[in-house]
Amino acid sequence: MQLTYHTDYSLRVLMYLAIQRERVVNISEIAERYRISRNHLVKVVHALARGGFIKTRRGKGGGIVLARAAEEVNLGDVVRYTEGPLKPVECFDIERNRCLIANVCGLARVIAQACGNFFATLDGYTLADLVGHREGLRRALRARPPGSKRVEQTCRLSPRSERRLGAIAPDNAQRGHG
Amino acid sequence: MQLTYHTDYSLRVLMYLAIQRERVVNISEIAERYRISRNHLVKVVHALARGGFIKTRRGKGGGIVLARAAEEVNLGDVVRYTEGPLKPVECFDIERNRCLIANVCGLARVIAQACGNFFATLDGYTLADLVGHREGLRRALRARPPGSKRVEQTCRLSPRSERRLGAIAPDNAQRGHG
Repeated sequence: MQLTYHTDYSLRVLMYLAIQRERVVNISEIAERYRISRNHLVKVVHALARGGFIKTRRGKGGGIVLARAAEEVNLGDVVRYTEGPLKPVECFDIERNRCLIANVCGLARVIAQACGNFFATLDGYTLADLVGHREGLRRALRARPPGSKRVEQTCRLSPRSERRLGAIAPDNAQRGHG
Repeated sequence: MQLTYHTDYSLRVLMYLAIQRERVVNISEIAERYRISRNHLVKVVHALARGGFIKTRRGKGGGIVLARAAEEVNLGDVVRYTEGPLKPVECFDIERNRCLIANVCGLARVIAQACGNFFATLDGYTLADLVGHREGLRRALRARPPGSKRVEQTCRLSPRSERRLGAIAPDNAQRGHG
């Protein structure tokens, strides 16, 4: 049983932003600190912005921030969004299903119930619950605390990325994944 | 969130055997009825036998049967066995983990709890619960009811496959996944 790397990286981005609180962060910084591909993170950030979990800031010193407080970001909402339509077994994928017994087999109902309980567990937690060890996380990522000097090496979103992302207003953000 | 094809096919094999009750079935028959690769099924059957979920019968008319009644085959046991060690996110894979915050991040505990609730749901069901529509499944698979004439086209396990599988005695079967 595996979650996608898209979900894994999305949660890492959200956690990174959570420990920065209000500081605007650029994608390259997150990629560098986690030592993962910036290209992967660009796609992840675009999706998180579309889903209303983060906001983008344009112009000089631009980047991304959480769309709302970590305590208000429900983990079930995040993972349902990043995983997309559940396809734990073939018969859940209507377009690709080739299982001949899909209509008379009791498996789908049981697996759907198990997945429901998986997400119901996540619904009991928020992003804030993942970053309780805020200082330990900062040390592990060598992240600067809020208010400290910005790193000179910056990587603002390109105009094209900004166009693809759009600057998401809090109102839209709320609707984005509501 | 996805289960492996190994789990998906394992459950299909067990369901096929369940609707056959005591009839010894060969791998080619199952591959033909589900229209899936016999090569995949050979690996699946080897694993199910190693896990003690099925028994192999050697010689003329040989093949496989459930190691015990479908009502005694717990779904949680099956899926835990076929999925192997859980690696829903990178930090669960000690050998391959490269996440820098694994030791200070709260995600693993939450995901582990969610996975626990996923499997706890499966623990509430048996193989028998998946094949309640026995006649509908037989029609969908065009499977013959117990006691009916065997299909002439047979594919007994090869001596090599038999050696790799071994004939699993019920006692061993019980221990195999207990």
